[in-house]
Amino acid sequence: MRHQVVIIGGGPSGLLLALLLRRAGIDVVVVEQRTRDYVLARIRAGVLEQGLCDLLREAGVGKRLDTEGFVHEGTVIAAHGRKVHIDFKTLTGSTVTIYGQTEVTRDLYAELDRTEAPVFHEAEGVEIHGADGDAPYVTFTRNGQGYRIDCDYIAGCDGFHGVSRRTIPEDTRREYEHVYPFGWLGILSETKPLYHELVYAGSKRGFALCSMRNAHLSRHYLQVPLTDRPQDWSDEAFWDELRKRLPPEFADTLETGPSIEKSIAPLRSFISEPMSWGRLYLAGDAAHIVPPTGAKGLNLAASDVYYLSRALIARYAGDEGLLKTYSATALARVWKASRFSWSMTRMLHNFPDEGDFLDRMQEAEIDYLAGSKAAQTALAENYVGLPY
Amino acid sequence: MRHQVVIIGGGPSGLLLALLLRRAGIDVVVVEQRTRDYVLARIRAGVLEQGLCDLLREAGVGKRLDTEGFVHEGTVIAAHGRKVHIDFKTLTGSTVTIYGQTEVTRDLYAELDRTEAPVFHEAEGVEIHGADGDAPYVTFTRNGQGYRIDCDYIAGCDGFHGVSRRTIPEDTRREYEHVYPFGWLGILSETKPLYHELVYAGSKRGFALCSMRNAHLSRHYLQVPLTDRPQDWSDEAFWDELRKRLPPEFADTLETGPSIEKSIAPLRSFISEPMSWGRLYLAGDAAHIVPPTGAKGLNLAASDVYYLSRALIARYAGDEGLLKTYSATALARVWKASRFSWSMTRMLHNFPDEGDFLDRMQEAEIDYLAGSKAAQTALAENYVGLPY
Repeated sequence: MRHQVVIIGGGPSGLLLALLLRRAGIDVVVVEQRTRDYVLARIRAGVLEQGLCDLLREAGVGKRLDTEGFVHEGTVIAAHGRKVHIDFKTLTGSTVTIYGQTEVTRDLYAELDRTEAPVFHEAEGVEIHGADGDAPYVTFTRNGQGYRIDCDYIAGCDGFHGVSRRTIPEDTRREYEHVYPFGWLGILSETKPLYHELVYAGSKRGFALCSMRNAHLSRHYLQVPLTDRPQDWSDEAFWDELRKRLPPEFADTLETGPSIEKSIAPLRSFISEPMSWGRLYLAGDAAHIVPPTGAKGLNLAASDVYYLSRALIARYAGDEGLLKTYSATALARVWKASRFSWSMTRMLHNFPDEGDFLDRMQEAEIDYLAGSKAAQTALAENYVGLPY
Repeated sequence: MRHQVVIIGGGPSGLLLALLLRRAGIDVVVVEQRTRDYVLARIRAGVLEQGLCDLLREAGVGKRLDTEGFVHEGTVIAAHGRKVHIDFKTLTGSTVTIYGQTEVTRDLYAELDRTEAPVFHEAEGVEIHGADGDAPYVTFTRNGQGYRIDCDYIAGCDGFHGVSRRTIPEDTRREYEHVYPFGWLGILSETKPLYHELVYAGSKRGFALCSMRNAHLSRHYLQVPLTDRPQDWSDEAFWDELRKRLPPEFADTLETGPSIEKSIAPLRSFISEPMSWGRLYLAGDAAHIVPPTGAKGLNLAASDVYYLSRALIARYAGDEGLLKTYSATALARVWKASRFSWSMTRMLHNFPDEGDFLDRMQEAEIDYLAGSKAAQTALAENYVGLPY
């Protein structure tokens, strides 16, 4: 079997890349280890930058996004006794859109189905061969049958645990990692969102985030020690603690109800360099992980896909230039977004081992933010997404 | 002996406060532990915010500042392979003035002499009594003779090691401290400044700052381990290392020469709360220390003096309100400036124990700064000084 581009990974970045390349007449195939249902069951972020929304529209999947997504023109940072409204629209002219990653993935699959793009699910033992030469190919087994796909290029969109990054020899790549000393306990509940915008709260008790999926579905998070397990937290304990971390006017109006999902995720910053090796190109979580503060994970995958789709389209039009600079171009934005995610995380969480001084620096940062248009603009321009 | 206000400490904050109060007709006395020559021999910062310059003019000592000071409309941050010009004037409408702290102190003494203000130098064993009551007084000995000065109020401008802060009972105050794992090795040399603005440089080798006192006198600094001693560094070794930390175009034009002063200072953030206790009011280093990155030490002392002079003048005009809020008002600005000094220090120094991830975050911060007007404005507005 032969295709021009093999995309490993059927999550949002792989699917979006597939659609963008197909629309340019490039022959792609998607290879995914899991079932489609498994991929669709993942609950992830839902804050979409303008750049990602534009890319989805370009890929032909903007319709539901535009009717069901919620445009947010700002966010609230309520920390250390202060409440600061960050007005994205006024400060940057841009906004973000609330639309669940699950919905994005669903839309992408529907469009791929429509275009009859080849997608292999449940591909076991995926391996990349000859990526450093001129004739790369990908092998896997499926339902007991062996497959080999020859290709020109391979896009590694298979996430942190995928095979793509690990295919790059260890002495060729360099990994940077920073592990935060806490996790996020998240619950999904059929309750009214706290506010019409996201509320980021921080106090000595720790961080909290009140987010939403839609007008009747809330997604709330609490910073918890890494030793906690979801079963340690009853719904009541969750709501009680959340109330304590919110300013009184928010705590008083918080609608509570049974959780329909509850999980704990650790927070980590991770970046692997370079993002290409021979004819293999990494995109999204395969190359980098950000802590969820600032909602950059999916959006960074999108900017990678933007750069990589442009580079491959240019390549098939005869210009290899963008493909050669893809890693450097993508990484420049990745590092900046990672810096933002790291600094938002540092500003709003309690770091139990770092003492009172950091608490007071955080408090001073919020106080400064409250009075400085420049600081608000810097936060807003990062939150809505730096330009591609 | 009786005076309305006893000012403990004959450094720039005490002297400036004395002049401002005298001009308002308040009867002050200054009590200083050292000789005048000792105070004048201290070599300290020389980057003056607009607010401090205005205050010096108000105190009647702006003449030499205005003729001999150098107005800087920007600064250069040359770190991690990038060179970013921060244009204070364009971004904030404000500037800073280069004029040595020694010169400021000299001007203040000259004006105090002219007004025949009482100043006691070489006051030994200074003690504060009854500050929590209605009849405070200060005692000391001088040339073997005991003195007692009764007063209405006491201003503690006697620095970090002075008696004023320690007079506040320990259970009444709270101290916050952060010690950085390095020091600054500074030299003074009769050489041409590197550039017409200050150059802040950072690299994996560590931080460097190329500053100046005037057109023929340079002040340069290198981040060094706390275990280093000045005698470990020959002039040649200093210039060699400085060149390595500068971008090539600066390294090539660096004028070198023999050092006329060489010393190492540790870097520390320190804040003591509250800044008042009964009739005792702290100002400057007596209450807070910042690391020198960002040049906020003397400027923070100046904003304390601004608030305290206004408060005492209002008090003698019958309104005690500002005096009651002095501590909170001064501290709000102190915390914000401390945050800025801390974040500049974090952005530009090498933290040997924190690994590669922080290096890359610093690099990403410079990269972001280079492309963001908002980030440049935030840095500039802090550097030129947040409003009083």
